[in-house]
Amino acid sequence: MTIEQVAISESRGPLLDPSEGLRVYADDRAHLFHSWAAQGAVSPIPVAGAQGRHFWDYDGKRYLDFSSQFINTNIGHGHPKVVAAIKEQADRICMIASTFANDKRGEAARLIAGLAPGDLNRVLFTNGGAEANEHAVRMARVHTGRTKVMAAYRSYHGGTSTAIGLTGDPRRWDNDAAGNSGSGVVHFFGPYLYRSHFHATTEAEESARALAHLEQTIIFEGPRTIAAIILESIVGTAGVLIPPPGYLAGVRALCDKYGIVYIADEVMSGFGRAGAWFAVDHWSVTPDLITFAKGVNSGYVPLGGVIISDEIHETFRDRVYQGGLTYSGHPLACAAAVATISAMQEEGMIDNAARLGEEVIGPRLREIAAAHPSVGEVRGTGVFWAIELVRDPETREMLVPYAGVGAQNAPVNEVVAACKQAGLWPVYNFNRIHVVPPCNTTDDEALHGLAILDEALKIADSYVTT
Amino acid sequence: MTIEQVAISESRGPLLDPSEGLRVYADDRAHLFHSWAAQGAVSPIPVAGAQGRHFWDYDGKRYLDFSSQFINTNIGHGHPKVVAAIKEQADRICMIASTFANDKRGEAARLIAGLAPGDLNRVLFTNGGAEANEHAVRMARVHTGRTKVMAAYRSYHGGTSTAIGLTGDPRRWDNDAAGNSGSGVVHFFGPYLYRSHFHATTEAEESARALAHLEQTIIFEGPRTIAAIILESIVGTAGVLIPPPGYLAGVRALCDKYGIVYIADEVMSGFGRAGAWFAVDHWSVTPDLITFAKGVNSGYVPLGGVIISDEIHETFRDRVYQGGLTYSGHPLACAAAVATISAMQEEGMIDNAARLGEEVIGPRLREIAAAHPSVGEVRGTGVFWAIELVRDPETREMLVPYAGVGAQNAPVNEVVAACKQAGLWPVYNFNRIHVVPPCNTTDDEALHGLAILDEALKIADSYVTT
Repeated sequence: MTIEQVAISESRGPLLDPSEGLRVYADDRAHLFHSWAAQGAVSPIPVAGAQGRHFWDYDGKRYLDFSSQFINTNIGHGHPKVVAAIKEQADRICMIASTFANDKRGEAARLIAGLAPGDLNRVLFTNGGAEANEHAVRMARVHTGRTKVMAAYRSYHGGTSTAIGLTGDPRRWDNDAAGNSGSGVVHFFGPYLYRSHFHATTEAEESARALAHLEQTIIFEGPRTIAAIILESIVGTAGVLIPPPGYLAGVRALCDKYGIVYIADEVMSGFGRAGAWFAVDHWSVTPDLITFAKGVNSGYVPLGGVIISDEIHETFRDRVYQGGLTYSGHPLACAAAVATISAMQEEGMIDNAARLGEEVIGPRLREIAAAHPSVGEVRGTGVFWAIELVRDPETREMLVPYAGVGAQNAPVNEVVAACKQAGLWPVYNFNRIHVVPPCNTTDDEALHGLAILDEALKIADSYVTT
Repeated sequence: MTIEQVAISESRGPLLDPSEGLRVYADDRAHLFHSWAAQGAVSPIPVAGAQGRHFWDYDGKRYLDFSSQFINTNIGHGHPKVVAAIKEQADRICMIASTFANDKRGEAARLIAGLAPGDLNRVLFTNGGAEANEHAVRMARVHTGRTKVMAAYRSYHGGTSTAIGLTGDPRRWDNDAAGNSGSGVVHFFGPYLYRSHFHATTEAEESARALAHLEQTIIFEGPRTIAAIILESIVGTAGVLIPPPGYLAGVRALCDKYGIVYIADEVMSGFGRAGAWFAVDHWSVTPDLITFAKGVNSGYVPLGGVIISDEIHETFRDRVYQGGLTYSGHPLACAAAVATISAMQEEGMIDNAARLGEEVIGPRLREIAAAHPSVGEVRGTGVFWAIELVRDPETREMLVPYAGVGAQNAPVNEVVAACKQAGLWPVYNFNRIHVVPPCNTTDDEALHGLAILDEALKIADSYVTT
């Protein structure tokens, strides 16, 4: 039996030397600076290996990956076709400057443009999603000759300066305080019926009122000053917020009405996560720019990019585009993207993600919601779901507060710890547990993970006050 | 004979199907959006393969790489040890979230910290140099509680918002115009004796006056408002400007005096380019933060980062660092870094780069300078050299103007075209040709490329007016 077979067939990982894990941990604590963390509070599990929907540590503890890491390994770990493509490309050519044409770079761009809606025919490749949003905003500003960008509260658009300035979650706060966002961003409220900013009670009402709010904000900011509206097609980390029918089409119409560029951030929602190649496909909406990363090659090699409409491309036909990066169109990353897209097509992963959402995850989550008073709402599509936990199902008071700190987060931390204890690695954000496994998760794996969650949510129930 | 052996032993690349090259070109022109370019003016050569210090197209034309692509392939193309390490790691684990500890991630951080001077013991990994500078500035702002950052005219720090705002070359201009730099940056003049801003005639004078100018600028901006000074230790694209003795130590002293964080941008100058692990090693200066990318793994997999002093790390021991990215510490990229650093050590590439500069490139470039009236100055160290071309050696009028457009650039364009015609791929910027081959370039390869340059510079001579 290979290590992979052991890992897949057993509920434990392969036998490894735990002292090796201690050495890995020691290197980390001596020399690594961690993202979004107080360094003294970091205590990372050393991961020894990963295959399919599982990863394991050096003590043989194995986790079912309901996180897809940072919601990026949409094809799971160690996909043999993509690994083979990376190895083959490494033998051919790892890196060549974007000055040159390269077969895999061109093929990846052709495949991605072919998947994108409408006339989004060209791709600027970046290293990741933050850079993709930086470049999309830059293109929109030059294309329109305007400066301001509108973005939603409850959003995440990346960690670099413009991207974090666009962001509508607490990760922006300290970067604003340091004065380095300076990104000309205006924030507005998007639709979120469960906690409606617009006092709506139906999806249709939420959609109409959210669009009216957006248009009023445009009018009072000055339509001729607004370069772009950027929106996660399905809001990711900030809540897996599925826009109500008509909302994205309404945004498209407002952008057309006021000459504003519509940027769809599909960094998290694209490439199968939502049970479609792009989440906008659910509503047949064509943005002017789509940004992507993560799922495009499942993060096997860093890659992101912007898919560009013919009209915006035309702006830069004779005018120099003032932006770029050393690794644009990195051949190894593009080879991984070609192989990932092919594997997703050949293995029907998009359909599987859609089916899982409709037939397995959705129904089971609704059962869980019915059984647990702490579950205020479950929502999602494909392999992109959120469980919203409340302290009081009537008032919908969040189980833990928005941007809470320390002991305030105990109820959710305890649920998460119970999941991990039982071998499930979930994603959580404030009062929500997200269910975001790879697109090629099996029914059994999904049901196994949901059973663990079901059990762990009893802890959340114990905090319900009604 | 393998393809690689043919490529190395012959002056032409392997026999390939030129129609394949046409197909690659067609994909590029139909679907790729190019960095820093008017898209209608792009006509990229399709590169079919690369090995060592050469790459070739589908017509069998082979180029000696005096560019290291974007000055990043410091170990040349297809280094077998690094390719093997990438393939081995691809079989093990491509990507795991930075939430976890990972052996290659920790080992890369340990090796890099071991190479860095002083107490720069921790590494935040990014995808590239721009992000590294974004994060370094963010750390400095939080560490000091101040907002402004000082950066030099004649500099390049990357393409994302803060990084392009720091930049002191024309690539910043249109991004300022779009109002999206907003980065609180104050620019100053650095030392550059050949075109002294300070009317100096000796290196000692240039150094002292440049430091006096910097201190005056600090004083008039308000020392308590300045978070950081960021400097390329050797200015790269803007001129391969070697700081005169005492300058960087003087910057260090000013930073200490005013409580300012000293950020050394070693994205281009690090990992062997300057004939040392870091260019600051030439002057035994220890910055507070060092940013890197490119040479760390020769760009075989996108990777960059910030090396962090103990003091700045301490600031984030209990306080959350508000920054991050999906692919921080990417295992495949880190495995390539470990193998690259090991290969550079085992094969003595740093020493080779230093020796090449001292014994081969430098002496030969000085001969070239003596023979060509168009060569105003040659300068450099290691495999990091510039040839400054002038229309008039007396007045030092540039052969083509700063930020010139179209036909203004004809003299340099013609030199570059002649080099390419003869099978040499150089780097150029305005009136300069840069000589930036890989660190493991052989003497014969260096001399061959310089002979081509020697010949091509006759074209530049024809434009000399005196």
